[in-house]
Amino acid sequence: MGGTIAKMHDEGWRIGVLDLTTGEPTPHGSETIRRQETDLATAALGLTWRGNAGLINRSLEPTLEARKLLASYFRMLRPRWLFAPYWSDAHPDHVAATQLIEAARFWSKLSKTDMPGERYHPERIYYYFCIHLRLAVQPDWIVDISDQWSRKKSSIEAYASQFVAGRPTEPPTLIDRLRDDAAYWGRLIDRHYGEPFATKEPLAIRSLRDLF
Amino acid sequence: MGGTIAKMHDEGWRIGVLDLTTGEPTPHGSETIRRQETDLATAALGLTWRGNAGLINRSLEPTLEARKLLASYFRMLRPRWLFAPYWSDAHPDHVAATQLIEAARFWSKLSKTDMPGERYHPERIYYYFCIHLRLAVQPDWIVDISDQWSRKKSSIEAYASQFVAGRPTEPPTLIDRLRDDAAYWGRLIDRHYGEPFATKEPLAIRSLRDLF
Amino acid sequence: MGGTIAKMHDEGWRIGVLDLTTGEPTPHGSETIRRQETDLATAALGLTWRGNAGLINRSLEPTLEARKLLASYFRMLRPRWLFAPYWSDAHPDHVAATQLIEAARFWSKLSKTDMPGERYHPERIYYYFCIHLRLAVQPDWIVDISDQWSRKKSSIEAYASQFVAGRPTEPPTLIDRLRDDAAYWGRLIDRHYGEPFATKEPLAIRSLRDLF
Amino acid sequence: MGGTIAKMHDEGWRIGVLDLTTGEPTPHGSETIRRQETDLATAALGLTWRGNAGLINRSLEPTLEARKLLASYFRMLRPRWLFAPYWSDAHPDHVAATQLIEAARFWSKLSKTDMPGERYHPERIYYYFCIHLRLAVQPDWIVDISDQWSRKKSSIEAYASQFVAGRPTEPPTLIDRLRDDAAYWGRLIDRHYGEPFATKEPLAIRSLRDLF
Amino acid sequence: MGGTIAKMHDEGWRIGVLDLTTGEPTPHGSETIRRQETDLATAALGLTWRGNAGLINRSLEPTLEARKLLASYFRMLRPRWLFAPYWSDAHPDHVAATQLIEAARFWSKLSKTDMPGERYHPERIYYYFCIHLRLAVQPDWIVDISDQWSRKKSSIEAYASQFVAGRPTEPPTLIDRLRDDAAYWGRLIDRHYGEPFATKEPLAIRSLRDLF
Amino acid sequence: MGGTIAKMHDEGWRIGVLDLTTGEPTPHGSETIRRQETDLATAALGLTWRGNAGLINRSLEPTLEARKLLASYFRMLRPRWLFAPYWSDAHPDHVAATQLIEAARFWSKLSKTDMPGERYHPERIYYYFCIHLRLAVQPDWIVDISDQWSRKKSSIEAYASQFVAGRPTEPPTLIDRLRDDAAYWGRLIDRHYGEPFATKEPLAIRSLRDLF
Repeated sequence: MGGTIAKMHDEGWRIGVLDLTTGEPTPHGSETIRRQETDLATAALGLTWRGNAGLINRSLEPTLEARKLLASYFRMLRPRWLFAPYWSDAHPDHVAATQLIEAARFWSKLSKTDMPGERYHPERIYYYFCIHLRLAVQPDWIVDISDQWSRKKSSIEAYASQFVAGRPTEPPTLIDRLRDDAAYWGRLIDRHYGEPFATKEPLAIRSLRDLF
Repeated sequence: MGGTIAKMHDEGWRIGVLDLTTGEPTPHGSETIRRQETDLATAALGLTWRGNAGLINRSLEPTLEARKLLASYFRMLRPRWLFAPYWSDAHPDHVAATQLIEAARFWSKLSKTDMPGERYHPERIYYYFCIHLRLAVQPDWIVDISDQWSRKKSSIEAYASQFVAGRPTEPPTLIDRLRDDAAYWGRLIDRHYGEPFATKEPLAIRSLRDLF
Repeated sequence: MGGTIAKMHDEGWRIGVLDLTTGEPTPHGSETIRRQETDLATAALGLTWRGNAGLINRSLEPTLEARKLLASYFRMLRPRWLFAPYWSDAHPDHVAATQLIEAARFWSKLSKTDMPGERYHPERIYYYFCIHLRLAVQPDWIVDISDQWSRKKSSIEAYASQFVAGRPTEPPTLIDRLRDDAAYWGRLIDRHYGEPFATKEPLAIRSLRDLF
Repeated sequence: MGGTIAKMHDEGWRIGVLDLTTGEPTPHGSETIRRQETDLATAALGLTWRGNAGLINRSLEPTLEARKLLASYFRMLRPRWLFAPYWSDAHPDHVAATQLIEAARFWSKLSKTDMPGERYHPERIYYYFCIHLRLAVQPDWIVDISDQWSRKKSSIEAYASQFVAGRPTEPPTLIDRLRDDAAYWGRLIDRHYGEPFATKEPLAIRSLRDLF
Repeated sequence: MGGTIAKMHDEGWRIGVLDLTTGEPTPHGSETIRRQETDLATAALGLTWRGNAGLINRSLEPTLEARKLLASYFRMLRPRWLFAPYWSDAHPDHVAATQLIEAARFWSKLSKTDMPGERYHPERIYYYFCIHLRLAVQPDWIVDISDQWSRKKSSIEAYASQFVAGRPTEPPTLIDRLRDDAAYWGRLIDRHYGEPFATKEPLAIRSLRDLF
Repeated sequence: MGGTIAKMHDEGWRIGVLDLTTGEPTPHGSETIRRQETDLATAALGLTWRGNAGLINRSLEPTLEARKLLASYFRMLRPRWLFAPYWSDAHPDHVAATQLIEAARFWSKLSKTDMPGERYHPERIYYYFCIHLRLAVQPDWIVDISDQWSRKKSSIEAYASQFVAGRPTEPPTLIDRLRDDAAYWGRLIDRHYGEPFATKEPLAIRSLRDLF
């Protein structure tokens, strides 16, 4: 959802990303490399804040301990909205991440607890599409990211160890594939590039001026 | 969808309503009464334009002639968006109206035709909930109409021959029921009153600033 | 689902409620207060039996131990049907409770086990709507609780520490909101008040005489 | 839905069947044969009333004229409920029949009309499964027809020109297939035989005593 | 679905296309131009047969007359399968075409009729995606057309009056967009290009050897 | 899915079955009996390989340890496809098994791990129907197993301790019920017997020659 992040940045929102794990080990990465790549991506998107929860990659589980850790972040950072991976996925860490985020959102508002910070309830959870299952689910809404695509692309290419190294260099490369995706979503809204989102609850809308 | 109309009016949109029929005969109404009621409702909502297509109430059918008539209106009025009744309904006129609107939207952009005006394609169709079937479908989005509820109520009460005359006066009256509905939708977005909408296509969103 | 409980009580059913936890801590409650409130609610609904499984509030998890505990209750109490929270919810305890109830129902029929009681299989699980997610899912069936609404209301107000204390007193209060909900569901069945239920399996029906 | 008809008959309901057409021509039938078969089936099910609307088989269309005819029947017969074919089907007459029944139900309550009888609104439409598309849609409810299966079978075999003549006599015959179906639905409710129904609106339930 | 047509051609299937109308008038086409373009596309795909039913473009309606015409074609041509446009669309001719094809398939098997040919029932209807609504429905199956994409592209470009003339020449052109689409579907099956299909009935499968 | 296994065997596929547990204890079985029954079933279906993962029956949980064990099997056995129980079920072991299989499929492709074997990614997961919930979900595809039904029946009867011992001997027996099911699915594809499957991803199809 890098395009939407870049767009919100342009509009003056304060946006943070909390990486749940280091993402390592991977075939071509290392803890050091990933930190550097993360810094590059953070710069490309113009993030206000970036943190890492220190949970263990490949072994993410929706435990009470991890829930507490995430809820503590929410109480300290007080995000208005949360964005989580789409709830159906082949990647068990994605599925666990979404379950954790949903549960931690609820815990974040608890009183009489030893969690740091004050009671706080993020207003919404929206779901972005980084789905490893080859689903073609219809999103609830698509954001026009035509002006942000190049920054989104940069933020992905920043993770060269993941998306470039050791991968086929003949087209369509993985980056080409992501461009195809963004173009597919863009076509559905009559724009060059789009980014899809889902929501379990009906969208709450203050004004229709930003629908098009 | 009177609450949303009132809200858009406040924001400076130009909004027109095209009645497809006179709505008559009804048990307590007449052509004259309905015209007066329509004028009252138009004033209550602050409509920019109101017209009547002159199709026959109770007998609406998705014919080519009616499609042409509607498409001609679209070419002359050039609305950016269309709002149609939700597509599943017990009222055959509602079902036919939606089919007509969907087809006329397509015809509106035809060239080499004897329809008046220039080619024109309304960008979107959204669907409001005036469903005679007792469905409880989840809407795609809900508009906060807390500040517009009283005007929506006035616009409904304007049609006294339909919603007041001959109906039980003990609570819950029909107006009470509509208030219950608006409160139900409002509760789903943490506001006093809401108005639900559906869309077949993913929503196209320019900015997230009006989501809440 | 207090309205349906009160209605079943009137019809001579024997109805038990097994609280999974004490529900504490909460901002305005205590173990003592909740016990008193529970007694009040039990009396308001006319329950045959009420128990507490002693699981830990806020930390409910679908463990084998909790499953065994619940299955043991089922084997001892031998309920014909089970009612569980709707399966999609923002409250992690609700989600865990439903998973536990579904799994314990299966375990309840096991032989060659050290669980107390005899093999027993509750015939059905139905799902009631106490959903913290702002979903608007269509229920499978709605029970007319027009004559039971006042008792349902009493059973909710019994939990003053949860639904009254510290909450806004200006309308719509939380109780007003629940009334709006019951009225919304009632309107869908042409009655004053209704209570919605869902089922994963098709309903099994012996006679149509109680459909209306 | 013959099993449910037979069951309702046993419970004392008054049940009518309005054939929309003669069903002819067919390969092995004739108007005369079908009338005789219809009489046999009527007797097998114990119908209170049976009529024929005289619409044209193979050419059923949801016209205003046919709608008026059906609505007139509804006003004269005043059925509490309507049962229509499931709404998605490969048979165009089935699809048209359902559209007609839905629209005529609405028209039936019109005032200021030249239709015979008084305003009347059938309370519900339920949908039975006689689907020519090979769908496997989950029904909303299944009626136990174990005790009525033999009468249902008789009522089907009454139409020998349709279900026996010229068909393969080796098992599974068409009747065997229908038995397989009834057994499949029965298994889903732990009974010998069942009959599936769908509804667009949530079921309205007065008491749970007939769920099992 | 040109890629799948080309693939079936390579496998030795006999494939016919029945155009329902001439497709004219259009902004840049004419009857003559379209005939030439149709011949080009027919050659590009290697069709066994191509015909035109002579129905009226823009005014397609699911009438009994058109149904009879189509059913007559089916009885004469005896296609094993039918392919129709996806059932939900913004283009009223597409919607009508699908309704016609579904109904005509049923009529095709009628006896005692004055339609030409013998009774015949096409075994299946599958639905291809040429959807003018901006839907993102998940297809039931995707065919690998990586080796057929260039021929599909040629068959589309053959209709220069529709897809090239008067359209923006800067990328993404309409052809680029169609390539993006094919790439999107291809990515979902780990191939370069794919073509999506839907079915209302479960797929009937003889062997799993062609799944991958 | 024994019918499909037998069919694939006939076509020369190499098919393995990994039992996750011994399935014991059960009312009439024992570890010894089940081993013998398993051997009988293996022979009836013509399996290439059969193993047992040694997880604990009744207590299956989607733990990281069990995930690792399964992923190790996948790396060693390198199956092209995986078949798992349908994802919604009343049997908690079935639900856990499916979660484990989905997660282990992902883990199977990890590098930098102490799991045995090489990185490997099973291409697809398909879901068979052994659902203890009385669902009637529409499958995505149905395999014709008319010629394999007797072998499927034998492979089920091989487990006499589960499907015969202690069960009612009057028809419909459990085996009769399974035959009814196979006949129901067969009727949906115009064959004697069928076997249903579901998929979360669109089916990837190389050629249409095996659809019918």
